[in-house]
Amino acid sequence: MNTKLNKIAVLTSGGDSPGMNAAIRAVVRNTTYQNLKCVGVYRGFQGLIENDFIDLDARSVKNIINRGGTFLKSARSKDFREAEGRQKAYQNLKNRDVDALVVIGGDGTFTGASIFSNEFDIPVIGIPGTIDNDINGTDFTIGYDTALNTVVEAIDKIRDTASSHDRLFLVEVMGRDAGDIALNSGVGAGAEEILIPEEDLGTNRLLESLRKSRTSGKTSSIVVVAEGDQIGKNITKLAGYIQDNLPEYEVKVTVLGHIQRGGSPSCYDRVLASRLGVAAVDALIDGKSNIMVGVSHKKIVHVPFEVAINGQKTIDNDLIRVADIVST
Amino acid sequence: MNTKLNKIAVLTSGGDSPGMNAAIRAVVRNTTYQNLKCVGVYRGFQGLIENDFIDLDARSVKNIINRGGTFLKSARSKDFREAEGRQKAYQNLKNRDVDALVVIGGDGTFTGASIFSNEFDIPVIGIPGTIDNDINGTDFTIGYDTALNTVVEAIDKIRDTASSHDRLFLVEVMGRDAGDIALNSGVGAGAEEILIPEEDLGTNRLLESLRKSRTSGKTSSIVVVAEGDQIGKNITKLAGYIQDNLPEYEVKVTVLGHIQRGGSPSCYDRVLASRLGVAAVDALIDGKSNIMVGVSHKKIVHVPFEVAINGQKTIDNDLIRVADIVST
Amino acid sequence: MNTKLNKIAVLTSGGDSPGMNAAIRAVVRNTTYQNLKCVGVYRGFQGLIENDFIDLDARSVKNIINRGGTFLKSARSKDFREAEGRQKAYQNLKNRDVDALVVIGGDGTFTGASIFSNEFDIPVIGIPGTIDNDINGTDFTIGYDTALNTVVEAIDKIRDTASSHDRLFLVEVMGRDAGDIALNSGVGAGAEEILIPEEDLGTNRLLESLRKSRTSGKTSSIVVVAEGDQIGKNITKLAGYIQDNLPEYEVKVTVLGHIQRGGSPSCYDRVLASRLGVAAVDALIDGKSNIMVGVSHKKIVHVPFEVAINGQKTIDNDLIRVADIVST
Amino acid sequence: MNTKLNKIAVLTSGGDSPGMNAAIRAVVRNTTYQNLKCVGVYRGFQGLIENDFIDLDARSVKNIINRGGTFLKSARSKDFREAEGRQKAYQNLKNRDVDALVVIGGDGTFTGASIFSNEFDIPVIGIPGTIDNDINGTDFTIGYDTALNTVVEAIDKIRDTASSHDRLFLVEVMGRDAGDIALNSGVGAGAEEILIPEEDLGTNRLLESLRKSRTSGKTSSIVVVAEGDQIGKNITKLAGYIQDNLPEYEVKVTVLGHIQRGGSPSCYDRVLASRLGVAAVDALIDGKSNIMVGVSHKKIVHVPFEVAINGQKTIDNDLIRVADIVST
Repeated sequence: MNTKLNKIAVLTSGGDSPGMNAAIRAVVRNTTYQNLKCVGVYRGFQGLIENDFIDLDARSVKNIINRGGTFLKSARSKDFREAEGRQKAYQNLKNRDVDALVVIGGDGTFTGASIFSNEFDIPVIGIPGTIDNDINGTDFTIGYDTALNTVVEAIDKIRDTASSHDRLFLVEVMGRDAGDIALNSGVGAGAEEILIPEEDLGTNRLLESLRKSRTSGKTSSIVVVAEGDQIGKNITKLAGYIQDNLPEYEVKVTVLGHIQRGGSPSCYDRVLASRLGVAAVDALIDGKSNIMVGVSHKKIVHVPFEVAINGQKTIDNDLIRVADIVST
Repeated sequence: MNTKLNKIAVLTSGGDSPGMNAAIRAVVRNTTYQNLKCVGVYRGFQGLIENDFIDLDARSVKNIINRGGTFLKSARSKDFREAEGRQKAYQNLKNRDVDALVVIGGDGTFTGASIFSNEFDIPVIGIPGTIDNDINGTDFTIGYDTALNTVVEAIDKIRDTASSHDRLFLVEVMGRDAGDIALNSGVGAGAEEILIPEEDLGTNRLLESLRKSRTSGKTSSIVVVAEGDQIGKNITKLAGYIQDNLPEYEVKVTVLGHIQRGGSPSCYDRVLASRLGVAAVDALIDGKSNIMVGVSHKKIVHVPFEVAINGQKTIDNDLIRVADIVST
Repeated sequence: MNTKLNKIAVLTSGGDSPGMNAAIRAVVRNTTYQNLKCVGVYRGFQGLIENDFIDLDARSVKNIINRGGTFLKSARSKDFREAEGRQKAYQNLKNRDVDALVVIGGDGTFTGASIFSNEFDIPVIGIPGTIDNDINGTDFTIGYDTALNTVVEAIDKIRDTASSHDRLFLVEVMGRDAGDIALNSGVGAGAEEILIPEEDLGTNRLLESLRKSRTSGKTSSIVVVAEGDQIGKNITKLAGYIQDNLPEYEVKVTVLGHIQRGGSPSCYDRVLASRLGVAAVDALIDGKSNIMVGVSHKKIVHVPFEVAINGQKTIDNDLIRVADIVST
Repeated sequence: MNTKLNKIAVLTSGGDSPGMNAAIRAVVRNTTYQNLKCVGVYRGFQGLIENDFIDLDARSVKNIINRGGTFLKSARSKDFREAEGRQKAYQNLKNRDVDALVVIGGDGTFTGASIFSNEFDIPVIGIPGTIDNDINGTDFTIGYDTALNTVVEAIDKIRDTASSHDRLFLVEVMGRDAGDIALNSGVGAGAEEILIPEEDLGTNRLLESLRKSRTSGKTSSIVVVAEGDQIGKNITKLAGYIQDNLPEYEVKVTVLGHIQRGGSPSCYDRVLASRLGVAAVDALIDGKSNIMVGVSHKKIVHVPFEVAINGQKTIDNDLIRVADIVST
């Protein structure tokens, strides 16, 4: 129990994700509920260094639960990588009588938060907010579910054209290192093939699979490609290669890009963000620090930052099998 | 291992839910994948009795993963409650050389399936497809996630009007016995109060809470009401009572109704349906019967029908606390 | 040319509609563009009387073009119906050096605006903002297109259930006096029958039509009912009557209600609102008053308030014929 | 009045657009309504040549009004450019006793249809189905309104990220020759700048405008770029140029691509398609040929193919002015 806790600062950092506003709201509302004070920090760690704060109370966060992005804004901060920057940040927190910090973001955010928390006597709690779902120790990160729906809705639209014209579409989705978005949205969108970084399908097996697909009576096809996939990395080149080898297909490319980061959060992400925002303040009251709050089988868990960042998250092999079967 | 397994019938029964088509597709595709045959039954158990079948292969289920409802249709069947009806159903299955049955639906469906499976030498597997999430032994039922998004999107629209006019809206959502939809959508939509069957708030505490809400600076409010809630059951009467006692509010009622059952399934529901559809056929191949396939902490589980139906599902008390806090 | 024009007030009044925020934004931005000043009035005419103003500049209206409702809020004002209230309103405008007024709303709003404009030496321009499309002299009102999309998306969901269960759904949509929403959304949603106030179909012809529908092979049906329709006014009673006379149908009722007023505006409504907001300020600069700006065949038109309010808008008989044909 | 009219063929050709299915449905339903027969042709003119027909009645087109794409499929046909191909097509129509042809598509489609109609004694009516709105003589083409909504919803998502990160986004939308999509979606999405083929803004004026934008307090910006715009044609190069010259911005590029062609049609497009589909059959009954049916100020018009194709459609200069003003 942290008895001296009186004022909490909250910030968002790294790439924005849908539900960050809902998480900020829950942090703020729980501070009010627990008779604590709350300040927001603009533009992540950079705002911490530049002393860019705003007082927040329960009414400051009304009507934001349904909005994408983060009203506190986010930014990358080179200065926070330097001891001098972090010292300034600490000083700014002290000057405002801030006792604890909640950071919402991904692994980069948690790395910075962990260093900061180890250097200074200020408890820091992390909330996983990233569409990539690449944080260890939590079943889901905030924004991931919304991103999946965005991708699937986009591919539903593309499929209208694909099947009207008997075409093959390569659709690039986010995921530099993790194939979760590609695998799940690929199954959800009924893709014929899914290319992910964790698995090297190889172009030959891809060609063979597409050939078989045509033989089995499929006239149009969607291939979902994670941006970090071995053979899909250069998607234009891959499209050309397929076109050269499978002239019976008309091959097209769509890169979904930044629409995947935005949009009104799904109910799941709003509820998750509300739970984790509340849990972060609860954890501070319980005297915790240097941990991320996450969710495992519907229960709140506390995960040390180093585990959240370094732990190996593995791809769901059962789902890869399902993907193979349902694209029969 | 069921070595004599050759042909599987699949049907949907009870209220339709988004993702049922995706589940049928996965059942059919896995039969093709495993070199089995598949037939669909129209209109649930009633079609079984009336011999209303259709042969299905991998191509029969293309372009349906994104569609709400069920292309096999659903119906209530009084006849299936009679031994005579079930005898006819069994005979029709035998006449078509069907070796096993997959049923997609809710507790009513599983009750019928369980009786049938006990009476005749035909293995039956259930897949939980209902928006109510009221089946024991699985974390989620197919359609629940989509219904939550539908409700939250509808309330987002209502909130536009509520805050433009400083009004109080009572929004009735589905849930005769279970408050899961109300509780989760209420948190997701940022409701001020949530009325669920599992908890008797009482009208006085509701009035008090709404009064406090106004005092704290809130000018508009949303109250989400599960249709089975004690005081919310008669929502028009409740609205009148609130209006009489809180004349400072302008009270309005919206009953969301049947829009909650339809719509293109969310990515989550499509993936869940794909996994469970595949798992149902896998279970038959493994010689299982009289069980429901479900998902628990991302893993496939096999739940005896009697547990699925009778087990007590409890409301998430942690989330009730979160709801209280974030509506501060 | 109004040379003394320096400061313009803008308000929204009556029922809110999607696109009102976009219209306010365009008014404000055009005042900035023309080197004029702008103030917003909260809660319509009531805020005018209660002196509830806010200074607005180009940055005040950022990021609102996509939001439903009206951030200036809306309210009914009994006081504005009294000479005393209007005198107060005028005094408040004078005290703030406001030279002209832009009002966004429907016929009630324009009635008040017209009286006010005739009583006092202050030019007033109206912008048609209502989902009902019941204003004479403009092809479209702001919010109407969005409401149509909302209704059609809702009925698409209901149709999933209707066709899964072979049911007949009566869907009530807005339209006390005008059937535009019902007729257009009915055609858009593929309804079998559409009941509108302008046409008295009669229950017998409705029954006959539904009977024929079944005979022609339709297994499910949607009937769209405007709330002001003669026989559809009491929709529950109508449903009971149909059920009694057509026992082969399973009849269900859904009242769409307030979801029709909210939501992010469609592109069409945003563009229309932008054009009309700009045109309102242009009209004031041109010395106009006591008129509504509207759009006719893609061109801006100026319509005297009395014409906008009293002119008879007629139902599109060609579209009624189309509705009959496409529901064959 | 065409007294010998008995059987009508309908096809879709060129790029698919949302609402094509609704148009086919209206053609088919009106033939049934008028006691005529109808056949569908798969894959446009190519299917005509390859004798790929299907009989259609009122029930064949149920539950398709809400679906994107075209269930009759579309294709480009080199063969139809040759006299021999067209001769074959004519012979196939005669062999099936088809008396008239309805073609749904854009200017390429109408060019082919016009030649065919002049060569052979078979009346042909066109329906404008293309997202580009680049057909002369009709206010709107089927699919255009839906495409605008798709673009605006996508940019709404991108804006979440843009404003969370204070970034500048270049968003490429469709429009090789016509800037209608860019201009209207740009106004609808609240873009700071809009680049269209009809207007050569010049990179210098773009830079200047963006600089001014920053000075006026805007921290993030969206620039909508039609793919055919002079300086926006090579969007990556343009982004690099801006980045070099405006280092205070972080510049990002998103190419919306094929999601713009698909999706469930808006209510407006469904109603337009229903009206034009009915009108096409009406026109054939009236003995018309070699014309397109279109809509002008809500009324059906008949436009000779050569006018529809060659007439110059001009950009809406009033809207360009509105775009300038509302981006203040």
